[in-house]
Amino acid sequence: MTRRITMPALLTLAAITIAAPAAAQDDLANRPKTQVVAKGTSPDGRITVTVALDGEGRASYAVARDGRAILTDSRLGFLFTDAPKIDRGLALAGTARDRADTTWRQPWGEWETIRDRHNELTVRFREAARLKREIGVTFRIFDDGVGFRYTLPAQANLKQANIAGELTEFAFAEPGTAWWKPAYLWNREEYRYRKTPLDGVGTAQTVMTVKLASGTHVAIHEAALVDYAAMNLRRSDRPNAFIADLTPGSAAASVSRAAGFSTPWRTIAIADDAAGLYAASRIGLNLNEPNKLGDTSSWIRPGKFVGVWWNMITGKWTWSRGPRHGATTANVKHYIDFAAANGIPGVLVEGWNVGWDGDWFGNGKDMQFDQPTEDFDAAELQRYAKSKGVYLIGHNETGGSASHYDAQLDRAFKYAQDHGIPVVKTGYVTDAGQIERTDADGSQHREWHEGQWMVNHYARVVETAAKYHVSIDSHEPVKDTGLRRTWPNWVAREGGRGMEYMSWQDKNPPEHEANLVFTQLLGGPMDFTPGIVSLKGSDDSDIPSTLAKQLANYVVIYSPVVMVADTPEAYAQYPATLPFLRAVPTDWSDTRVLNGEVGDYATVARRKKGSDEWFLGSVGDEEARSFTVALDFLDPGRAYTAEIYRDGPGADYRTAARHAMTVETKTVRRGDQLTIALAPGGGQAIRFVPVGKAARKR
Amino acid sequence: MTRRITMPALLTLAAITIAAPAAAQDDLANRPKTQVVAKGTSPDGRITVTVALDGEGRASYAVARDGRAILTDSRLGFLFTDAPKIDRGLALAGTARDRADTTWRQPWGEWETIRDRHNELTVRFREAARLKREIGVTFRIFDDGVGFRYTLPAQANLKQANIAGELTEFAFAEPGTAWWKPAYLWNREEYRYRKTPLDGVGTAQTVMTVKLASGTHVAIHEAALVDYAAMNLRRSDRPNAFIADLTPGSAAASVSRAAGFSTPWRTIAIADDAAGLYAASRIGLNLNEPNKLGDTSSWIRPGKFVGVWWNMITGKWTWSRGPRHGATTANVKHYIDFAAANGIPGVLVEGWNVGWDGDWFGNGKDMQFDQPTEDFDAAELQRYAKSKGVYLIGHNETGGSASHYDAQLDRAFKYAQDHGIPVVKTGYVTDAGQIERTDADGSQHREWHEGQWMVNHYARVVETAAKYHVSIDSHEPVKDTGLRRTWPNWVAREGGRGMEYMSWQDKNPPEHEANLVFTQLLGGPMDFTPGIVSLKGSDDSDIPSTLAKQLANYVVIYSPVVMVADTPEAYAQYPATLPFLRAVPTDWSDTRVLNGEVGDYATVARRKKGSDEWFLGSVGDEEARSFTVALDFLDPGRAYTAEIYRDGPGADYRTAARHAMTVETKTVRRGDQLTIALAPGGGQAIRFVPVGKAARKR
Repeated sequence: MTRRITMPALLTLAAITIAAPAAAQDDLANRPKTQVVAKGTSPDGRITVTVALDGEGRASYAVARDGRAILTDSRLGFLFTDAPKIDRGLALAGTARDRADTTWRQPWGEWETIRDRHNELTVRFREAARLKREIGVTFRIFDDGVGFRYTLPAQANLKQANIAGELTEFAFAEPGTAWWKPAYLWNREEYRYRKTPLDGVGTAQTVMTVKLASGTHVAIHEAALVDYAAMNLRRSDRPNAFIADLTPGSAAASVSRAAGFSTPWRTIAIADDAAGLYAASRIGLNLNEPNKLGDTSSWIRPGKFVGVWWNMITGKWTWSRGPRHGATTANVKHYIDFAAANGIPGVLVEGWNVGWDGDWFGNGKDMQFDQPTEDFDAAELQRYAKSKGVYLIGHNETGGSASHYDAQLDRAFKYAQDHGIPVVKTGYVTDAGQIERTDADGSQHREWHEGQWMVNHYARVVETAAKYHVSIDSHEPVKDTGLRRTWPNWVAREGGRGMEYMSWQDKNPPEHEANLVFTQLLGGPMDFTPGIVSLKGSDDSDIPSTLAKQLANYVVIYSPVVMVADTPEAYAQYPATLPFLRAVPTDWSDTRVLNGEVGDYATVARRKKGSDEWFLGSVGDEEARSFTVALDFLDPGRAYTAEIYRDGPGADYRTAARHAMTVETKTVRRGDQLTIALAPGGGQAIRFVPVGKAARKR
Repeated sequence: MTRRITMPALLTLAAITIAAPAAAQDDLANRPKTQVVAKGTSPDGRITVTVALDGEGRASYAVARDGRAILTDSRLGFLFTDAPKIDRGLALAGTARDRADTTWRQPWGEWETIRDRHNELTVRFREAARLKREIGVTFRIFDDGVGFRYTLPAQANLKQANIAGELTEFAFAEPGTAWWKPAYLWNREEYRYRKTPLDGVGTAQTVMTVKLASGTHVAIHEAALVDYAAMNLRRSDRPNAFIADLTPGSAAASVSRAAGFSTPWRTIAIADDAAGLYAASRIGLNLNEPNKLGDTSSWIRPGKFVGVWWNMITGKWTWSRGPRHGATTANVKHYIDFAAANGIPGVLVEGWNVGWDGDWFGNGKDMQFDQPTEDFDAAELQRYAKSKGVYLIGHNETGGSASHYDAQLDRAFKYAQDHGIPVVKTGYVTDAGQIERTDADGSQHREWHEGQWMVNHYARVVETAAKYHVSIDSHEPVKDTGLRRTWPNWVAREGGRGMEYMSWQDKNPPEHEANLVFTQLLGGPMDFTPGIVSLKGSDDSDIPSTLAKQLANYVVIYSPVVMVADTPEAYAQYPATLPFLRAVPTDWSDTRVLNGEVGDYATVARRKKGSDEWFLGSVGDEEARSFTVALDFLDPGRAYTAEIYRDGPGADYRTAARHAMTVETKTVRRGDQLTIALAPGGGQAIRFVPVGKAARKR
């Protein structure tokens, strides 16, 4: 049974005047209208940057290519710890334009010369009311991407910028797949890469690489990270959108600087495919300041090195003194002999100095960077190395006690210079957020590896080292933002999962290298320490790689200083690898990424600097894969002998056949098609030597 | 043509001694072995908490139910800004156990009494070397979830805790679906809920609700957030794992406190289904301290209210003075009349005070919380309201100038008390990270709504208000962590997308309420401001809801203070809603969630406090849906008249038929099955009145 309920009569309502809706100041209902205030395009006209102000005076930018949106309206602005944010209420204060087309030379690198061709658009905004602060945003628009940075001029109401965060947004116009690793965790940026929907990314470090639904590839990163906190990417409330998330410091603000500076460049590399992204990564170098060190050819030495390291990583030897101490005079001489015999110029020694005997992890206060242990005869080893045409590579492990290292920098690099050591590998082995900083007043702080203070610390190290003609290979570093252009003695860094993880329990997956090429390596060189030909880690564990892949990595993973990381004994056991390891250089005049998909495979060809030789490396993932590459990079009208190191019959990273490798030669010419077959977890390495020129013996 | 390359002879290698791998201190290869140090179980034995130390002395906990893992080993520990973290190198220092089974009474709420039955396990850890600091972790294990908190005792090497972050992890044992909203963005926690794979969550606020692949539902939240920074959840590097991410402050550390305190409780509610989670949310109340205010029955007044608000939200009226000023004496009298006529005890007035005339968004420095505008006759309105049996509800909008409000708190609440105002709605309308704090020395800082300083500010407001017998309904608040148990005058809060979004362009989706019930509302009451019977927002826009759903929300969305939010004119236009709106109470003796799926639908039955009447509300999403509910909550052996307000023929949130509502009555008994049909975007509200008792007229 149902019935309608009848309503009691309502009170008669008093008449009240209801005005029509209008744009009252406190009318939250009104919708901001967005107005374009400036546009810029790339030299080829394909990429467009649009800068706009919405109805509440919020600034934004958008990026399109060929008329198709890549990033939709993405906010711009700052939060401060001690002043109102710069966000709403902005008005256009002016625009300026510029353009450039120059070519510059790298002292070492993947390419001998790099062209910098871009259009520049600067937009200045000023707050219309209250503080009337001004900020500028400068866009450099290349044919393969965009960089932009803020300028915060010194002004009456902005003398000191204590930046709590940026409002900078990267709002992708469509869904896609992202490859990324997490930010702010405990293990020094050494994480596996994740592949997730763009809208499934956790807070990510850059480089973050994205394949949009349309197929376009985009990499978000930054360039010229100087006196600022590193940027990570935090999901916004809009789908597929991210906010620049500045690494915190131990001080109140993520960034504290006197106003009158520009931020690092936020970079958006854009390409049709993964291979194109690698080429587009040059915008990062272009956005860095030119070389400040002048001609460094006499002292910066790209080159391979060996060292007493893998035996420590596998647990056979120790960094600390004792019966299994690695850095003894005898052990090092053994490696010097091996290096000399194979034309490898460098020998890295870790654990050579006083300070390792306690629990040094996160506590390097005992480290003395000019005091060898008693079983390490520095003078004798310097003499012996020199007599063999080899140099030692130094190692300064701080255990994260960065201030303790700061206090010894001059001593440390003078020691290196005095002992003929041209490169020092640094280390900051402590968990995230635990870099120890002691101020002049004795106060203790903890800093993240990628916060402003550490960004400045790493720069101090590199600048001080340059005074002593020492190059730096930073481990547990801040990420690479192309500063090698400005300080070419910053030759390499770690900052990711290198080969050492292959020794330990949580090993790198077979796709790892194919991830690195299109993510971290878009930022710059990585000291990956490849070449573990034993394919054995600690506890006699098997390394999930084929032997050929170990060789391929020397071409695929670029670094001017590259370790031939296994033991002399291991190379004696797998001598088929040595001709390639001797021949492969670490400095190139040209680089072409021939193909690849992020996390699946990558094939890279590089031309040896000052030579007609080419090298090719190809790495895959856990799947067997076969494809053809056109040898279009070779000089025309010339025959080459291709020395091919390929996965042998039955090769497989999962079985004992991981060592199966076939070494063969072919005569090839430009225009030939070469079929490359990769085993599961496999790779292939090729050296191309022009016929008629004697192939160098090493 | 291929040929094998033959190897040159290698140098004979010098014999070197290679020791067998051993557990050297610096042997990174060694795998930590995890050892269980303590176990605890719930009173019913189904839930188990396991506490462990790994081989490097890192503490972790794990949670299982019925032997099935819910959370796997999840780390515990702290990062400090000025001291080494508490992480590795811990040893067990002791354990303690306790248990409780008590029942306590709520002065108001969803349930009149709540049972607190749990087993307690405390584990103390001490660093084995160096600083030898001690921390404790106390677990309270309920039959439907777990709470744990840290204790940091005062000690020689930990006098002041300047906490940069927690290492606390929540590592889900299996994948699942998560409902969450993002943390650290610009819009005051007012975001749509996202539904993503657990492993696709961005940095999330709590409550985060998870449906695991196995079907088990879990909600992560915190309880008793006092003098600490609110916890968010950041993805870890492990799949489906999260790290506690403390809201930053403007100071160096997220949390700064003298040691000798316990953190808020981290809570893990566990249930078979969404409905069970709602009941399990009581663990949060149980983990809060008991009522500190004693008998508040004379001054804390649950109840409905009307007010000059929706006309501001739609842009008809303004908060500021002028021709369209809302808070005039005449307008407020009109609302008093409407309230009195409908038995609604409260009338909210916004924009009544001096300070709104400038751009108050993010800048409330002109606000005077005891100075009415000249067109608002406070004394006359107090008299008029009292004569009608109605009270006014105050409004203190700070515009985010929290220190400015702090300085006026006593004045503000004395004003309220003097004017018979028992409840004050506060507001902090400014974007995230922009709460303005001025210290005694005049220095300016910016604080997040959920940082430690604001957590303490909100508490100051509530504690000061209690002195004047004023209750607080916080808008733009910190999230609810159950502090209403301790300070029952903290009656409600916003902190999410309320009905106001239905006026604006980016409207709440139809699933919004079914999200809220199983996410934010697990934390506590929300001032959602339902009852917009016009279903019209600003610019005459249509609200995507049916009329019946507007009524259902009064049962589904719990708050002791609830607005009947539309205008008197709108209720005159839709008088069929008024009997229900008059009858529905805001205080309950019992609550049962009858069914629901997160973000799909929810059906809630509540028993009116001090009465035999029951009310039922059901809300759906964009889909039409029909189901049966058993009326098992009714008293046995008794007939009830069910006054049913259901979606009428053709009702649909997308069409003009959104207003179609059928009102009917049925006689029902315990054990009857009632079919509930929800239109797209619809809902249903039912009042059950025992037959033979006169249904109250209002």
